[in-house]
Formats: sequence, C-alpha cells, structure tokens
Amino acid sequence: MPELRRARLIDVARRAGVGKTTASDALSGTGRVSPATRDAVLAAAAELGYTANTAARALRSGATGTIGVVLPEVLARSSYYMAFTFGVVTYAAAHDVDVTIVSPSVSSGRSRPIRADGLIVGDPRAGDPALPALLSSGIPIVTQEHLPDDVDGEPDGVVWSSHRAGMRRLLEEVDRVRPQHPALLVAPNVTDWSRQLVEGYREGCATRGWEPVIAPIEFEAPWHAVRASTERLLAEHPETDVIICGPDSSAIEVVAVLGRAGRSIGDDITVVSCVDHPSLPFLQPSITSIDLRPRESGVACAELLIDILEGRADHGSAQEFPITVVARESTARPLTSTHPEVHRQ
Amino acid sequence: MPELRRARLIDVARRAGVGKTTASDALSGTGRVSPATRDAVLAAAAELGYTANTAARALRSGATGTIGVVLPEVLARSSYYMAFTFGVVTYAAAHDVDVTIVSPSVSSGRSRPIRADGLIVGDPRAGDPALPALLSSGIPIVTQEHLPDDVDGEPDGVVWSSHRAGMRRLLEEVDRVRPQHPALLVAPNVTDWSRQLVEGYREGCATRGWEPVIAPIEFEAPWHAVRASTERLLAEHPETDVIICGPDSSAIEVVAVLGRAGRSIGDDITVVSCVDHPSLPFLQPSITSIDLRPRESGVACAELLIDILEGRADHGSAQEFPITVVARESTARPLTSTHPEVHRQ
Repeated sequence: MPELRRARLIDVARRAGVGKTTASDALSGTGRVSPATRDAVLAAAAELGYTANTAARALRSGATGTIGVVLPEVLARSSYYMAFTFGVVTYAAAHDVDVTIVSPSVSSGRSRPIRADGLIVGDPRAGDPALPALLSSGIPIVTQEHLPDDVDGEPDGVVWSSHRAGMRRLLEEVDRVRPQHPALLVAPNVTDWSRQLVEGYREGCATRGWEPVIAPIEFEAPWHAVRASTERLLAEHPETDVIICGPDSSAIEVVAVLGRAGRSIGDDITVVSCVDHPSLPFLQPSITSIDLRPRESGVACAELLIDILEGRADHGSAQEFPITVVARESTARPLTSTHPEVHRQ
Repeated sequence: MPELRRARLIDVARRAGVGKTTASDALSGTGRVSPATRDAVLAAAAELGYTANTAARALRSGATGTIGVVLPEVLARSSYYMAFTFGVVTYAAAHDVDVTIVSPSVSSGRSRPIRADGLIVGDPRAGDPALPALLSSGIPIVTQEHLPDDVDGEPDGVVWSSHRAGMRRLLEEVDRVRPQHPALLVAPNVTDWSRQLVEGYREGCATRGWEPVIAPIEFEAPWHAVRASTERLLAEHPETDVIICGPDSSAIEVVAVLGRAGRSIGDDITVVSCVDHPSLPFLQPSITSIDLRPRESGVACAELLIDILEGRADHGSAQEFPITVVARESTARPLTSTHPEVHRQ
C-alpha cells in the first residue's frame, strides 16, 4: 500500500502503539522513554519514512527563543487583540519563550527580516499584501481563523472557531425579544470571521422569514464610523428592532447613538454584540454577546505553534476553539413597543 | 570654566544655536542639514567634548530592530498593562520597530540573552531580582516610573508621573461626598506608584483631619484577594465611607462586595479608583478615577527610548507624564446617610 501522503507524528505514534508525546520524546531524545519504546518508535518512523519537520525543536535548540504575533493592524481600541496577545504571552512565558509583536510594516514591504522561530497570524485578512510573503517565508505559521478564500498557501496550523454556529446561537437569544427586523453591522468578507458571521446571519434570517439587512462598516471602525453606519441604518431602515454589532466595542457607540436618538433599549429596539467587551456587562441594560474567549484563544495558538515547533504537533494541524454566547439583559424579555417612525410612513 | 558633567546633546545644540533634532541629524549625518550648520554643530560638539552615546543609532543601523517591554509579571487582568503595551507597539510600529514582550523568566535567572536594542521596564518593583541584572546588562533602559528606593543603578530614561499629586486631586473629588472615613486599598511600598499613592493619601488625611486607614493588598491582586481585603476592611472599620481602590480593576470587585453587603453606593458609602478601567464609566454609579492614560504612557516610553537609541535624547532623560482625574457619579453629591452598624456600637 503506497503512502500517498507524508507520514505524520500521529502515524508514527499509532504504529508504535504509543501516544504522540511519547513518540515525540523518543524521536527527539528528550523526556523519559524506555529504550524499548524508543526503539519501537524509531523503527515505526523508519518504516513510514517519517522525517521530523525542520522547524521542530528549533525553539529549544534556540534560534531566537521568540515567537511573533502578527495582528491585522495596530489596534488602539481592540480589547480583543489585547487579550489575545496577552494570552499568547502568558503561555509563551510559561515556556520561557518571548513574544514579539511584529510591526505591521510587514504589510508594506519590510526589508528587515522577522526574527522569530514561528509566527501567529491573527485574523488573516483578504487582500493583505503581507500574507503571501509570510506564508512563503519558511517560518512556521499558526493562523487564528482560516485563511480567507483569496489567499493561496497553507499555514502550519490553524486555530479556528465556528462563528457561523456562534451567530446562530446569538440569534436564539435575539429570538427572546420577538424581533422582526434585526440588522447586522459588519465588515463583510474581510476575514473568515466576518464571512461566517454574515453566513450565520443570512441562514438565521432565512429560517425565521426575516429580511436580512447588512449595514457595512470597516473591519476596525473608529467611533465616528460606527456612529455614521448606525445613523444611516436607522435612517434607511427605521423598522430595525435589533442591531447586531460586529466590530469589537462598536456596541458601546451604538448604544450611545440610540440614546441620543431617543430610542429606549429593551423597549422599542435592542442591541447584541458579536464580540464581548469588558464594559458590556455594565451597560444599561447589559448587552448579550458572543464571548470569543480571546485570552484562551491566544493560549491555544501559542500552544499549537510551540507544539509544532517542538515536534509535538503535526504540520497542518487544525484545532477547533470553542466560543460561547453570554446572555444578558438586552435579550431578556420581548420588546414592548415599535419605533413610532415606522407607523408614520 | 571646567565642565563638571558630561556634555549632553542639548548643550551641543544650544552652543551651535540649533534645535536638538538638527544637532542630532548633524552628528549622525542624517536628515537635511546645511553644510554650515553641520560644521557649527560638529565644532560645538568638539568644544564641549561631546560624545554620542554608544547605543545611539543602534536601532537604525540595525542590531535587532526590536525594543523589549518588561512587565512586572504576566498580567491576565490588567487592562492597564495591555493598553500600555499597545501604546508602545503603536509608536514603535510607526517607526518600523518591533516590540518583544520579554518573558518574566528574566526574574528567575534566564540564560537566553535578551534580543532587543533597548528595554522599557514598566513599574519597576522593589525586590525584583531581575532589576539589577537588567540595569547592568548594557542594554539602554527606559523605566516607566522611577526605580524603587532599594534598587541601585540608573536607567537611561524615565517617564514618571506625580501620583502623589494625582491622589491629592482625587481626594478633592472625594471631598464632594463630605466623607469622614476614607480608606485606601493598596499594596504599599511595592512600586514608586504605590509609594506615592500612600504619601498623597496620608498628606490628604493630615490636611483634613482624617484618620488614615490603609487596607493592604497584593500589587496584582486576584478577585478573591480584593474581596477578602474589602471584607476585612469593612469588618475592622465599619465606619469607612469611601473606599479608594488601588489595584487595577479592583473597584469592580469592591462595588460587587458592597452590593452583596447591602451597602448603597453614593448613599452610605462610595468608591473611587486610582486606575481607570473601561468598565468604570458604565458601573452604577459610574466611578470617579485617576486616568493614568496608559496607552499614551506607552507611546511616551517608546518615543523616549527610541529617541535615546537614535541619539535624539540624552541618557538620563526624565520626562514627566501628565495624568488626570475623571470625575464621575460616585463623587457627584454628598453621602446621605451613615452605615447603620456604626451606630450600633
């Protein structure tokens, strides 16, 4: 039976009848492995033509002792990316590895080489000119979320979440307010995250007979852009009774816009968020949201990258990262009235 | 007239009758400087015996193109250090410099060298075994806040704030509630920040005839420690009518403890915070706090460090960084009652 694909660590482990960690330890000569087990693992590796990836153990043998984090851009307001990055730092620090936040000049033709044994790329974005160069740099890469469709290449590892399922769960909470016209504020098609949000929203609308309304906005929208998009949505669709806020922390500004417009949240309209934020439990009413668990996601990415670098995980590993919905007051009870303007027409 | 101290860049600039940037450009051969000006600057430098520091321009000439951030520890909950770090990253990225968050293993005897052209040390702590090693490493260092008294050595630059003055300003807001027994929840003497808070508090108490009550707590206290310290404070000092919360985000937990204890904030007790947090504007009532402007502080540290590395700022530069008090509802009006327990005694 020909081996059509390159043998992976797990194949070696299975053939030798041991776990992946033991197989890795046996191959690398680290850890506590009995001579008999080591022989069995080495024999299995030889039979399968297994070759450890070249990056394996680069960290321990010490090229730089650093992993890099590449973020979409420098994000002043993003509590999400801050928590994510500190998750990476927490895990890396526990493994005596430093973390470099790589300047976004990677996107604009950087001459200086990246000094890192591996990279974590957060939310790879469609059209990012840096991505192809990063993916062909030879530096092992774990992406957080899948690559967008327009990007060729294959990261060494992916930590991904089902945001489509997350949106469907969020819409179940939205159902409690008995809405008729929920609208989604989102930057469509920019990342796999936003693509999935739109898909999940459209599916949810189709199931419930809602007309989907997507209010487009930048991926990292500043306050004034959130305000402008919200005001345009309310002008063009005064019947809107739920605003589903895509961008991180946009719900805070949406709530402010609604307050200034004299709308009563939980009465004639409500707000939910696709990204939790430290302030959302404290808004009045508190805002139901999807908790993307950014810190834990950073930990998961760092763990997968370091495992790949040290030969404990295979290249091409994909790991689903669970997210959750936090139900709060903004979806606790049915809306009690309709916005007056809707009847004026 | 003997030159008793080493000439600084500003001295050269003054003697040549130009600005510091021009002097720096002339000395480094960068920027647009007329031949006449360059000659004047070089002559002034020669007269004063000025020697550019050895680290100058290391960044541009490209040792690593990276600056490091050393934080007190890996801080899961600290929105302050996250914002601070992202301030550093923002400024560094605009100057095509990467930022490495140095693993706290520096504190526990790290063998791997730090790969950075310069370091920013946030809130240097008394008793930190890593500090002496860092200060003698030869890597230029900017500290955010002055070194604690027990640490020998001199950083290359300091960005500091008057937290004593900040506390005094905060107490002026506290005065509005007409308190009699304000208590301070703080980790005393750990950093220059906490030392100044205690000083400012004691001064404010002395001026007003208050008995100072300090409830000790860890520098980075987890929720349960905040809860325990608050409960002990209320048990030992039931007369407390203002809790001044030191640690980042501790006010959130203090408010929760008071709620569970049946205390009514703004009525028989109130809360203020020494560190602002994204949730404080949204608590009920919103919480008056000192805005340490962490992001801007990170920018200031990165700017000073890069200026030192590139010869635009002198070694030994100290820069005051302004902080501000944000008055919110928790100190808007006088307390209306006293805690019943006080009268029971």
